[in-house]
Amino acid sequence: MLLQHQTWQEVEAYLNQSTGIILPIGSTEQHGPNGLIGTDALCAEFVARGVGEAAGAMVGPTIGVGIAVHHMDFPGSMTVRPSTLIAIVHDYVLSLARHGFRRFFFINGHGGNIATVQAAFSEIYAAYEGALGTRQDRELRCRLANWWDGKAMHELSKDIFGEDEGSHATASEVALTQFMLPETIKQATLDPPRAPGGRFHGPADYRRRFPDGRIGSNPGLATPEKGRRFYETAVPELAKAYAGFVGENA
Amino acid sequence: MLLQHQTWQEVEAYLNQSTGIILPIGSTEQHGPNGLIGTDALCAEFVARGVGEAAGAMVGPTIGVGIAVHHMDFPGSMTVRPSTLIAIVHDYVLSLARHGFRRFFFINGHGGNIATVQAAFSEIYAAYEGALGTRQDRELRCRLANWWDGKAMHELSKDIFGEDEGSHATASEVALTQFMLPETIKQATLDPPRAPGGRFHGPADYRRRFPDGRIGSNPGLATPEKGRRFYETAVPELAKAYAGFVGENA
Amino acid sequence: MLLQHQTWQEVEAYLNQSTGIILPIGSTEQHGPNGLIGTDALCAEFVARGVGEAAGAMVGPTIGVGIAVHHMDFPGSMTVRPSTLIAIVHDYVLSLARHGFRRFFFINGHGGNIATVQAAFSEIYAAYEGALGTRQDRELRCRLANWWDGKAMHELSKDIFGEDEGSHATASEVALTQFMLPETIKQATLDPPRAPGGRFHGPADYRRRFPDGRIGSNPGLATPEKGRRFYETAVPELAKAYAGFVGENA
Amino acid sequence: MLLQHQTWQEVEAYLNQSTGIILPIGSTEQHGPNGLIGTDALCAEFVARGVGEAAGAMVGPTIGVGIAVHHMDFPGSMTVRPSTLIAIVHDYVLSLARHGFRRFFFINGHGGNIATVQAAFSEIYAAYEGALGTRQDRELRCRLANWWDGKAMHELSKDIFGEDEGSHATASEVALTQFMLPETIKQATLDPPRAPGGRFHGPADYRRRFPDGRIGSNPGLATPEKGRRFYETAVPELAKAYAGFVGENA
Amino acid sequence: MLLQHQTWQEVEAYLNQSTGIILPIGSTEQHGPNGLIGTDALCAEFVARGVGEAAGAMVGPTIGVGIAVHHMDFPGSMTVRPSTLIAIVHDYVLSLARHGFRRFFFINGHGGNIATVQAAFSEIYAAYEGALGTRQDRELRCRLANWWDGKAMHELSKDIFGEDEGSHATASEVALTQFMLPETIKQATLDPPRAPGGRFHGPADYRRRFPDGRIGSNPGLATPEKGRRFYETAVPELAKAYAGFVGENA
Amino acid sequence: MLLQHQTWQEVEAYLNQSTGIILPIGSTEQHGPNGLIGTDALCAEFVARGVGEAAGAMVGPTIGVGIAVHHMDFPGSMTVRPSTLIAIVHDYVLSLARHGFRRFFFINGHGGNIATVQAAFSEIYAAYEGALGTRQDRELRCRLANWWDGKAMHELSKDIFGEDEGSHATASEVALTQFMLPETIKQATLDPPRAPGGRFHGPADYRRRFPDGRIGSNPGLATPEKGRRFYETAVPELAKAYAGFVGENA
Repeated sequence: MLLQHQTWQEVEAYLNQSTGIILPIGSTEQHGPNGLIGTDALCAEFVARGVGEAAGAMVGPTIGVGIAVHHMDFPGSMTVRPSTLIAIVHDYVLSLARHGFRRFFFINGHGGNIATVQAAFSEIYAAYEGALGTRQDRELRCRLANWWDGKAMHELSKDIFGEDEGSHATASEVALTQFMLPETIKQATLDPPRAPGGRFHGPADYRRRFPDGRIGSNPGLATPEKGRRFYETAVPELAKAYAGFVGENA
Repeated sequence: MLLQHQTWQEVEAYLNQSTGIILPIGSTEQHGPNGLIGTDALCAEFVARGVGEAAGAMVGPTIGVGIAVHHMDFPGSMTVRPSTLIAIVHDYVLSLARHGFRRFFFINGHGGNIATVQAAFSEIYAAYEGALGTRQDRELRCRLANWWDGKAMHELSKDIFGEDEGSHATASEVALTQFMLPETIKQATLDPPRAPGGRFHGPADYRRRFPDGRIGSNPGLATPEKGRRFYETAVPELAKAYAGFVGENA
Repeated sequence: MLLQHQTWQEVEAYLNQSTGIILPIGSTEQHGPNGLIGTDALCAEFVARGVGEAAGAMVGPTIGVGIAVHHMDFPGSMTVRPSTLIAIVHDYVLSLARHGFRRFFFINGHGGNIATVQAAFSEIYAAYEGALGTRQDRELRCRLANWWDGKAMHELSKDIFGEDEGSHATASEVALTQFMLPETIKQATLDPPRAPGGRFHGPADYRRRFPDGRIGSNPGLATPEKGRRFYETAVPELAKAYAGFVGENA
Repeated sequence: MLLQHQTWQEVEAYLNQSTGIILPIGSTEQHGPNGLIGTDALCAEFVARGVGEAAGAMVGPTIGVGIAVHHMDFPGSMTVRPSTLIAIVHDYVLSLARHGFRRFFFINGHGGNIATVQAAFSEIYAAYEGALGTRQDRELRCRLANWWDGKAMHELSKDIFGEDEGSHATASEVALTQFMLPETIKQATLDPPRAPGGRFHGPADYRRRFPDGRIGSNPGLATPEKGRRFYETAVPELAKAYAGFVGENA
Repeated sequence: MLLQHQTWQEVEAYLNQSTGIILPIGSTEQHGPNGLIGTDALCAEFVARGVGEAAGAMVGPTIGVGIAVHHMDFPGSMTVRPSTLIAIVHDYVLSLARHGFRRFFFINGHGGNIATVQAAFSEIYAAYEGALGTRQDRELRCRLANWWDGKAMHELSKDIFGEDEGSHATASEVALTQFMLPETIKQATLDPPRAPGGRFHGPADYRRRFPDGRIGSNPGLATPEKGRRFYETAVPELAKAYAGFVGENA
Repeated sequence: MLLQHQTWQEVEAYLNQSTGIILPIGSTEQHGPNGLIGTDALCAEFVARGVGEAAGAMVGPTIGVGIAVHHMDFPGSMTVRPSTLIAIVHDYVLSLARHGFRRFFFINGHGGNIATVQAAFSEIYAAYEGALGTRQDRELRCRLANWWDGKAMHELSKDIFGEDEGSHATASEVALTQFMLPETIKQATLDPPRAPGGRFHGPADYRRRFPDGRIGSNPGLATPEKGRRFYETAVPELAKAYAGFVGENA
């Protein structure tokens, strides 16, 4: 159930039975030689729609560009500044709150977003509940869930890819986009097959350490079929997490 | 050619032959009893993809939530503040500029965005060319084109819908979404068939004057087939405008 | 009736009979070889004062510097960033709203301001009526009117200047400043007499296309007497628009 | 020599001989029962124009609305937030700096502006000289002078009004507006003739302590002739200060 | 070696041998019935000074108030908004960068700061390396280390407190403040001795779930002697991490 | 009584008898060849703690980095932008206001902070009392006191140092830090013994005029014993000012 595909009267009716909504958030940034620039946004949106169906939940519009400052030495990567993303998340949540939504479940496709989205949640709580000045007698709740992050997901990734999963341009996310969009599968030489791992700082440091953009992964092992398995594992796990979140005692 | 479906190396190659990019921008707001909340974002993205194919141009991620302050008394409408949208447009354009993009062609789906996006362009020119402090020796160009706004489009609309086109939740945009997403076609009584027209101020005034959300339109006349005609008229007209924009003398 | 020339008790009395106010907004930017840098602010203020007298309306302080980013390659031009102008308009309107003003009629002297001022209105409606978070049960109304923009004005301009009116450093605005401030009339060679027309992007592009600053105009045809005619046409037309705006049903 | 009354070519010529400019800044706020709401902006602009003539200096547009938060319980008072005023002063100065202006002499009409304008100067120095990140090899200078503040001015005020001068809605500023705009002279009972003095906090506290808006003054003693003497004392004193400021060694 | 206790010439000399600096960051928020409101700032500063001595590193001023939105229903808790903290961290780092510092090692005392400080690092990298507009050829590095977070620390905590450590107002942090400031040791009844654990949302939800402020901890077990052991374990572990950070290849 | 050393229950109890709090604010900037970079923050905090004891008042966390833009050409100096400091002061005050604090007495250690802190007070009054939009029925009060600024302090300074006191890196503040932290006393040649005096503009101008950082002072005359006399004079004078401030009629 996509918010974008409803009429306002249908949303009004939905709000009589639930105040929960799922909001996908991704990123638009390099994902190595055979990963799509849109990987993180595509995966978050795809999984979120599945979760929405499984949970009978409304799914709102995707935030497609996230925090990718560290990828900016690779052509095509886009980023917003953290202060911009805080404003975006603030405005999305509070404009939905005006209509009565109270449970905001973000399904995230990009590790680099986590910190800023959590910061945005604090900014929202401060504004909505009145942390400064005078207490406001109203409440809402936000949660961030990474699509790759449940227990079953970690096991599946370990099973299928082991050490080749990596931490950026991972084998699993490339597989998921191949399942979702088989027409976009890329042929590319990965050299070395498994990229080096490690930490990094800003964009220049990132490119110096990881010249083709991957970190620790071998996405050459990705297949659409493996992607399907990730999708089918993620969706019920997240649907359960969503149900728990929406159903928590007030 | 979607930026999201490319690898960074493919974008690097593209930049050797063109510095132009198309960016769809829409809105997520009520569109009356039979219009989708996502109408403006869906139409902008759909048309932009068509234009990208026609013109051989890269198409970037869609800005899905725009300025819909005046729709906020209708459930499901979302808005960002104008100051937030200025930040978003600024960050999208300037992060692409880092890689060498220099021509930014926004395909817009929502009249309410125009003012703020134009304001954002001034903010970008000020920052990039150095309007304050010290002149910067660099240039880029932005343009906004509404998908419904070419000469052929106005004639087509007049032909098909005449006075029933209206100015919000228009017959043509509802038709376009029906062509694009036939599975979302809504059955709804429109009473009166053609909504009243006129001006309005903030959100309370809007809802008072236009209780079901439409302004001056009768979207009950929309059909997928009519939508197809709008699509097929808009795409070549915009592709030509894009080509002219990218090809202008420096 | 200038707000600046009243005491606070006189404003208090005025508010018992009207909640309307006129706010002039201009720009401080090059206007070609014989146009004043202050043209847009001077014209807006001059016309607004006339309208205030004709309509018995309070006139507030002029916003003298607007959005002139694209003129910044010409010495003496000043600009604020769009984000600054949004803050200014927001603060002017909301500080007057505290006292009970509810109808804000901006008389504008500069096309480049329109987008940002409209964006500011959305920012104000969002804040005042509570578009985000919780609906606020209060309303105000803003409108922007360009002094040159009424029907009678367009006819007059066509009559007097025809194709020589142009779109920047127009013949009519130069004439209006000559009527207002005859001691500032400049002698300058205009070569060619009618400047080229067309579109432009940022400041560097503007100066390249329009080297003396004018766009499409021949302000060499301006005279104080012609300026008087524009003034005398604009004032009653705008006074009527103001009266309509203030008198609209709530 | 008003910037607003020049052409851009005249400003270009001026910059060959001087990089100095005078910028008036005032406020729009209650000034008691017989003082004008625009007193501070009117006085600053009037004196600045005199100084400009005396010193052969360019005078830019007036900032008409300043920091009047503490006057906001009196109808007609307007204010911008300090963060807004910092943005305004920043943009005025840095847009003029792009053209080569380097000495910015603000003539101020309102004590409540001083702190924020000084803060703005620091913000400007930080941006222009690169206090953060990397040092920038460029310099400009800003100074604020209150029109009432020179030594001769204090003596004159003491001479003419003694203890009746006061600190808000002062006898001298009311006299100056009477000299400048005799048609605006107000008849009002001042009770008591000399208002109480003292400190205050926010707007509610101000109105409680000073119910008619004056602090410590008896502006019933103001006359146009006394205003003339203030004007004729202020102008040469400030012209000298301006000359010293512009002439300081680099 | 505290920056605050140096002269500028001593800092100049230090920069000849190192570009690293340690910056403590804490919070000022409730820590249950026997924990100090300043616990997080006090611990971060105390440990940072020890690390500075151990590593021969400069230690800068402490950021004493962090992100404590969720504690705001408890008297005495203070918070800044995430957008404010981003500005603070940005300004601290970039003003030190002007002098040549390039390695910024934050020692953190509060879990609630982590997200926002990481967001601030992205904001800094974006500004300093030019993620938007044009690449800047300069680099710096930031890292955040929580004083309680090393491997030896986790083992020690498990050893000493086991399940009674908890996650807010932890036994170990209360012990550390007792070691540091024995004169501030509080007598308070903890009921139940070990507080309940779990997740929470905004400030109202926090107080409802954890009525005395603690989460999962029994700080009644804290003693100064135990605090000493935490201190003596944390300092060498962090000094080693600092040395590794500063010594990383450029 | 330090806020940082209390539990939240102790703050709750304090609020039953007083709504006043003392907040120290300093700066971290060069203080010449024998002055500490932390002088202003150290002095403000030290004096504030003394005042808190003398007056039985709560003392909150120190703002350690202030407005030192003009010192940024000297290594080790740190600054925040004025817009950042306004946000900090705003957040400190309004987060304490949520708990019931209503009297905020800032003890300041740095002249360069005064303007921005006063600007912040206006920003706070505007937000808390509703200067924009709709009046809010609530009040708080802020005051700034410089530790060196009382009448007795000026006399003492004149007595002890006369013309050698100076205006930056003053003899008295260096003496105060020597009393407070005798272990940090520096040996340095001051050449000339008394630095030149005068005004300055941005950072480059400052360093050019005052090459070792001092303005008009001879801090070579400082001793810990003299520092003690300043401390013992400042504390009771400020304690009295605080008591007057807190006790003012509402």
